[in-house]
Amino acid sequence: MTKDSKIPNSTIERLAFYSRPLEALLKDGPPIISSEKLAGLCGVNAAQVRKDLAYFGEFGVRGVGYEIKALLREIKRILGTDRKWTLCIVGIGNLGISLVENENFRKRGYVFVAAFDSDARKVGTRLPCGLTVEHEGNIGKVVKALEIKIGVITTPARAAQRVAGILSKAGIKAILNFAPIQVRTPERCIIENVDFSVRLENLVYHLERLYKGENTRKKQT
Amino acid sequence: MTKDSKIPNSTIERLAFYSRPLEALLKDGPPIISSEKLAGLCGVNAAQVRKDLAYFGEFGVRGVGYEIKALLREIKRILGTDRKWTLCIVGIGNLGISLVENENFRKRGYVFVAAFDSDARKVGTRLPCGLTVEHEGNIGKVVKALEIKIGVITTPARAAQRVAGILSKAGIKAILNFAPIQVRTPERCIIENVDFSVRLENLVYHLERLYKGENTRKKQT
Repeated sequence: MTKDSKIPNSTIERLAFYSRPLEALLKDGPPIISSEKLAGLCGVNAAQVRKDLAYFGEFGVRGVGYEIKALLREIKRILGTDRKWTLCIVGIGNLGISLVENENFRKRGYVFVAAFDSDARKVGTRLPCGLTVEHEGNIGKVVKALEIKIGVITTPARAAQRVAGILSKAGIKAILNFAPIQVRTPERCIIENVDFSVRLENLVYHLERLYKGENTRKKQT
Repeated sequence: MTKDSKIPNSTIERLAFYSRPLEALLKDGPPIISSEKLAGLCGVNAAQVRKDLAYFGEFGVRGVGYEIKALLREIKRILGTDRKWTLCIVGIGNLGISLVENENFRKRGYVFVAAFDSDARKVGTRLPCGLTVEHEGNIGKVVKALEIKIGVITTPARAAQRVAGILSKAGIKAILNFAPIQVRTPERCIIENVDFSVRLENLVYHLERLYKGENTRKKQT
């Protein structure tokens, strides 16, 4: 068993990425994968994969690769994705609905068991997944009753900080925030802010480099 | 002016994060910010901020901080976010609609100018932003006519790889993929795969550590 405490955060963040192609290979691939092959499937470099997977040395066969099944089991144990997690969501707009209905979440053991909104017109609506939208005012009661530990925020930006406070007060320990604002972490709570436009900015940066490279090459010919 | 080529990728990725609170401060904050303050607003450590911003040394005032306006201007120039970018989107479900209507995108200069779907029932629908959904078969023609460089994929997983190929063939140079599958990069194209469940796995990992810490403390008392 790997000593989790030795593993740096940056490696942990890449483990989830590595697990995606490993899961696909588990179904219909060979039992062992090389670091080069895994790197290619993830779109990262092989040296990084080898460095990260060095923490799982016991699953490696020198010069051959890693035993997929055992590696995946260990990654899931470390990430805590080898069991079911219950979630609630606040903000039932288009993004909220798309997340609640996301099959990938359910497949990975993340199950939404409650959905909230502050809009009276949405309260009482039944979502395709079977959940009925409840009023934001019930967050405290429902979160405690269902012992929900993770909250997802998909409200407009102006409501996100307030909602984070309500969730934290209700006993939520971890929040995934999709509202386009950096939410400050309430006491004794972890927040991941997901900002799509950050990903777009990274993409544009690399796009510009690609063009500059092309222009340089054009100038040289 | 900063020599862009000296800046490592990992720093570039953090620049977009740093720019968010800087933008807010530009409106109604002091003209200068310390690395400690900025680190606090971004939820990262101050040493990292100082190391990253060392590439922008000329905007730093030793012992005081960074000139916000100049720093932000330089970050935007480097990321390529100081101008308008036109985008198209393929897959008009709940997620697709939420992205097209995302005000943050428009505010940052990312403007959707075309929306596509393969579902004949959706084709011809007018979205709240004013765009009319076109058939996927028109991607090639429209992308060329409007000189669109960036494509966003919000199709189901099974369609994503095929759509990436169509976009690339049409002349799209950069793709932001939200479909829950790692899309392989078509030739001469950059892809960012956005997988929400990866963020959730990171969150669960930290949540578990928090609990273990709590249990340890409880045991000690």
